[in-house]
Amino acid sequence: MTETDPAPTRPIWLADDKKRVQIIDQRMLPHNLVIVDLTTVDQVIEAIGEMMVRGAPLIGVTGAFGVFIAVQNALESGDFEAQVRKECLRIKEARPTAVNLAWGVDRVCAAVFSKSNPGDCLAAALAEASAIAEEEVDNCRRIGEHGVSLIEAIRREKGGKTVNVLTHCNAGWLACVEHGTATAPIYKAFEKGIDIHVWVDETRPLNQGARLTAWELGQRGVAHTVITDNAGGHLMQHGMVDIVIVGTDRSTYTGDVANKIGTYLKALAARDNNIPFYVALPSSTFDWEMTDGLAQIPIEERNPDEVRCVEGLCPDGRVEKVRIVPEKSRAANYAFDVTPARLVTGFITERGVCGANRDQVLALFPEKR
Amino acid sequence: MTETDPAPTRPIWLADDKKRVQIIDQRMLPHNLVIVDLTTVDQVIEAIGEMMVRGAPLIGVTGAFGVFIAVQNALESGDFEAQVRKECLRIKEARPTAVNLAWGVDRVCAAVFSKSNPGDCLAAALAEASAIAEEEVDNCRRIGEHGVSLIEAIRREKGGKTVNVLTHCNAGWLACVEHGTATAPIYKAFEKGIDIHVWVDETRPLNQGARLTAWELGQRGVAHTVITDNAGGHLMQHGMVDIVIVGTDRSTYTGDVANKIGTYLKALAARDNNIPFYVALPSSTFDWEMTDGLAQIPIEERNPDEVRCVEGLCPDGRVEKVRIVPEKSRAANYAFDVTPARLVTGFITERGVCGANRDQVLALFPEKR
Repeated sequence: MTETDPAPTRPIWLADDKKRVQIIDQRMLPHNLVIVDLTTVDQVIEAIGEMMVRGAPLIGVTGAFGVFIAVQNALESGDFEAQVRKECLRIKEARPTAVNLAWGVDRVCAAVFSKSNPGDCLAAALAEASAIAEEEVDNCRRIGEHGVSLIEAIRREKGGKTVNVLTHCNAGWLACVEHGTATAPIYKAFEKGIDIHVWVDETRPLNQGARLTAWELGQRGVAHTVITDNAGGHLMQHGMVDIVIVGTDRSTYTGDVANKIGTYLKALAARDNNIPFYVALPSSTFDWEMTDGLAQIPIEERNPDEVRCVEGLCPDGRVEKVRIVPEKSRAANYAFDVTPARLVTGFITERGVCGANRDQVLALFPEKR
Repeated sequence: MTETDPAPTRPIWLADDKKRVQIIDQRMLPHNLVIVDLTTVDQVIEAIGEMMVRGAPLIGVTGAFGVFIAVQNALESGDFEAQVRKECLRIKEARPTAVNLAWGVDRVCAAVFSKSNPGDCLAAALAEASAIAEEEVDNCRRIGEHGVSLIEAIRREKGGKTVNVLTHCNAGWLACVEHGTATAPIYKAFEKGIDIHVWVDETRPLNQGARLTAWELGQRGVAHTVITDNAGGHLMQHGMVDIVIVGTDRSTYTGDVANKIGTYLKALAARDNNIPFYVALPSSTFDWEMTDGLAQIPIEERNPDEVRCVEGLCPDGRVEKVRIVPEKSRAANYAFDVTPARLVTGFITERGVCGANRDQVLALFPEKR
């Protein structure tokens, strides 16, 4: 079920047998690199729900491959179509906030039922899921190309001095397929030889920043410093942050941004200190229906034990979960918050950079009008 | 050196032998209650520097008792006065941000040298340190009485529904001597039978909220919920916070507030959501010289390993420090930030509630004009 080598460069891929889907179990990073096989829909749902995979684009791609697995397992079923449709619904419910999940599942499901015989359905599912994955790679590459111009402009303003980027959570290649969203401009700048340094919010409760963003930046050799989620405001007050770039789990086309809990606080601090606050996303992360993110985007509440405990590496090499709160104290665990459009300087999309408002978003994506 | 019963009701006290000073080692809470003897100045400095004791008022009181210990140990010294003065300087340097430390040390030192023979000096040191401790108790009691009126007003507005207070770090009796500063109005409201609930920011890196505030509220039976430092903004956006009350390590008499890192982010969110943001402090925490907190208050940088690691209770009952970041990733650890006066609704002091500005502060403390 698990193996530990060689080091993958993507968080999800099709195994050599062209049947199993394999993922990195991101809960185990940075201390252990564990690879997990997905062969049933239950495993797909667990992988998404338990956050072995996370990040809006990757959740979408995993959902897409989940339909491929559902189709494989329904081929022998009496009622193929009903079975696949039921499984698709179950997958879509694995996590509520990321809009990409339903988007990826629905797209593969539609491709499947454009075919009439089950054998073609399987090939169609694989082709469509793979196409989604490659489109995400291409989208992230373009996000990097558009976003790097913002970093280059700051470098010019600073006369070549180090450009300091702050990011929250992980919107890196681990959250996508390659490049990442928020990290795409960072990796691109690094490739171009720009002197860049990243402040990495640890991102409690699950520490995706401290565990995942720090790990993937370290793997590539990008200079970075981990800070507590409390520290960003102080850094911004003292001129130590030039730009904030974050990802998003769902953004309304009117500019409201749902992202990991705490993003809103960084957006407030950026505004208070006149620091640009950008959100990088592929257009699959836009919600084209909702207009009021604060009122309409469902915010997932997760197990309070994620707040009550922290997982890390003991001196003796074991990974342990330690409890930090008194035994009888309650905890609450809201996973996301919504940053209102008024605090967002702009979106970095695969088609370019635009303001966080309906007019500018629709100007880039006129087919959504 | 350590014992584990009976449960103390203060974080610092004079031992029965009238020589040793005893403290709760707050690093061990909530999992273990450990009491430590202080008999040398080195131990006092370690207790303050390593944060066995912490919180502005308690640091001041510990510094005051530190002078009493310095006097005891200098009685046999050849040059009593030079020795005591040297030790006072060392104690004052144990932590840079809390203004109370120098204030407490200087006050006891002055009392000591108002006497001419060393025997009187010792009695004077003990009397002055004890007086400071009792004054802090009395100040905190008054802060509670003044602050509870703010909570009562909210209860009236809400027609008796639960009043939700958010606090950051620990400004409770563990940070003071009794009552606490930020918690004093909460305990007073609880005593009066007001339905009150406290959102407790965990307060990374050292989790004084999750460990200490949750523990002391739990000991008294006050309803509370621990949240990540990221969550407060979301709660405020959704009407789940009625008032923010925090303590402070040093505030300028012009209204700027140095407090645990992350306080500034909560002040921004409170302002963005029209929620009152109050700072509770005894007047010993005011800096009467500085006028620009952001530029002038020194911000302590602590060991990055406090960010890289988290301490907690393992399932087998051991307390372990686990590392959450990759082995090679750097971390930075700024301990405080400064909330500018414009974001502070008011101060709750032992003389009453006032706006966070020079005129209103000096109106309450006219002797400082």
